[in-house]
Amino acid sequence: MRSVAIVGTGFIGRGWAVCFARSGWDVRLWDPVDGAAESARRYIADMLPGIAAAGLLTGSTEQDVLARISIASTLTDAVEGAAHVQENAPEDLALKRGLFRELDGLAAPDAVIASSTSALLPSAFTDHLPGRARCIVAHPVNPPHLIPLVELVPAEWTDETTTERTEALMTEIGQSPIRLQREIDGFLLNRLQAAILDEAFRLVAEGYASTDAIDGCVKDGLAMRWSFMGPFETIDLNAPGGVRDYVERYHGMFRGMTETMRHSADWAGPVLDRIEMERREKLSQSELPERQMWRDRQLMALNVHRSTHQSE
Amino acid sequence: MRSVAIVGTGFIGRGWAVCFARSGWDVRLWDPVDGAAESARRYIADMLPGIAAAGLLTGSTEQDVLARISIASTLTDAVEGAAHVQENAPEDLALKRGLFRELDGLAAPDAVIASSTSALLPSAFTDHLPGRARCIVAHPVNPPHLIPLVELVPAEWTDETTTERTEALMTEIGQSPIRLQREIDGFLLNRLQAAILDEAFRLVAEGYASTDAIDGCVKDGLAMRWSFMGPFETIDLNAPGGVRDYVERYHGMFRGMTETMRHSADWAGPVLDRIEMERREKLSQSELPERQMWRDRQLMALNVHRSTHQSE
Repeated sequence: MRSVAIVGTGFIGRGWAVCFARSGWDVRLWDPVDGAAESARRYIADMLPGIAAAGLLTGSTEQDVLARISIASTLTDAVEGAAHVQENAPEDLALKRGLFRELDGLAAPDAVIASSTSALLPSAFTDHLPGRARCIVAHPVNPPHLIPLVELVPAEWTDETTTERTEALMTEIGQSPIRLQREIDGFLLNRLQAAILDEAFRLVAEGYASTDAIDGCVKDGLAMRWSFMGPFETIDLNAPGGVRDYVERYHGMFRGMTETMRHSADWAGPVLDRIEMERREKLSQSELPERQMWRDRQLMALNVHRSTHQSE
Repeated sequence: MRSVAIVGTGFIGRGWAVCFARSGWDVRLWDPVDGAAESARRYIADMLPGIAAAGLLTGSTEQDVLARISIASTLTDAVEGAAHVQENAPEDLALKRGLFRELDGLAAPDAVIASSTSALLPSAFTDHLPGRARCIVAHPVNPPHLIPLVELVPAEWTDETTTERTEALMTEIGQSPIRLQREIDGFLLNRLQAAILDEAFRLVAEGYASTDAIDGCVKDGLAMRWSFMGPFETIDLNAPGGVRDYVERYHGMFRGMTETMRHSADWAGPVLDRIEMERREKLSQSELPERQMWRDRQLMALNVHRSTHQSE
């Protein structure tokens, strides 16, 4: 049976386990903390009924999925025979360098070793490895079983076949992989998020709008089209002659705006007091966990919607 | 019967007509171009079956909605007795200044006069009017009957009651109004769009990713949560202690990214050749109109989905 090793079983590792197991893969969980993998497997067992009820188990039953997820008592056992290793350790460079040395020594020669890191460049923790050509970043979004994007970020020494195999694997299990041509801090997702958040913080800091107005603007305006097309296709369809026509019409208008975005508000400064106050008026601190469950139910419903309407 | 005047019957005016008429309002169309209002009404008649089939006529029939939309032969007739005037003229300052002078002279004293402009500040075309306190920008997204956001932008002399009445009206007809505290170029929507597009153009220009990878990153990653929460609620739910906890954890990481965003790629430069080539490989110029219809069908389906799952 085709198997993957999940190294590190926090929220990201647990989501990955569901992604692989519901697609028929044998999943072996490993975590250095005593009892952590067992606890992760119980957490997954608790999650599965909700995912099954939403119809997001790809035709498998809860029992099938859970039966495919086992606990490895050693890292050696976890990676033995695995075609793919997905590492989800804390964002600590020294720790990841050491862990990748171990993984590169233990994994089968033809296995891909992928990191879920969002904060570290692949070159920073794979340069010292004999098998660095089979290492790559495969960065998911939380929770991976409900948000399909996976960013594939090669180091300069990553083999093209490593990227291709990872892309094919992610596609096979129903994720949506995208490729970066080369590494950059934040990859694509967090850079695009940084850009929009930076303007959002500026607009609140300078008194133009409330936190809630900005959320409403994105939720009920911008993100509706983006959620099935992305920003480039949106503008391509927003002028009669396509994207060139759009840029020729509106480039000057947008340049006037971007010229005023050359500074950042201090996100942790007084604006944060206002944002926190406005958020806590909408949702108290104690209601956060319940609202996180609401978010996940919304994501499940959106996945179901997309599976029936996202046809190209 | 409560009535609104739609002044200017291009795509935005037509969408507004549907928004008001499906909610029971009497709509009077006026356009200075001979035959334009008649042509707009026929266009609306052709659109209605699709909107009705999607269940987005708020309980009205196509016949009801169309019967509520009439054509005014003069601007005087259009605004007479109207509680709300929605202006959708071309983005030409001199034209809008003249038109607003006319509208302010013709409209009933207690009518609100709102502009759909996305490019002009309300202070720029209402400063000279005796009734400037009842003027406001109510900027919709295209198409207004499928994207609920309306940005309410007051000039410094706009009465608070003007903003409140427009907000109540937009809410009543099922739109999602948000308020700016004061005017700024691009309002919120186009500023947030400018921020994300500017980073998207930079990433393509500097060779990090393709147009399609960026669209995928937003579509399958960022915009899923944004489409029902917006960016602030997303980060509020992405750290155990809420938004302050999130900022304290990740502020440094994001600052490193935003520091590298202090320049823009020339959107109309060589990067545009690449983006246009990549878009036209996915979709030829001649397929654009068909894809725009696909977009509107996707938006209809998303509206139906939201009406059943967006409950707070």
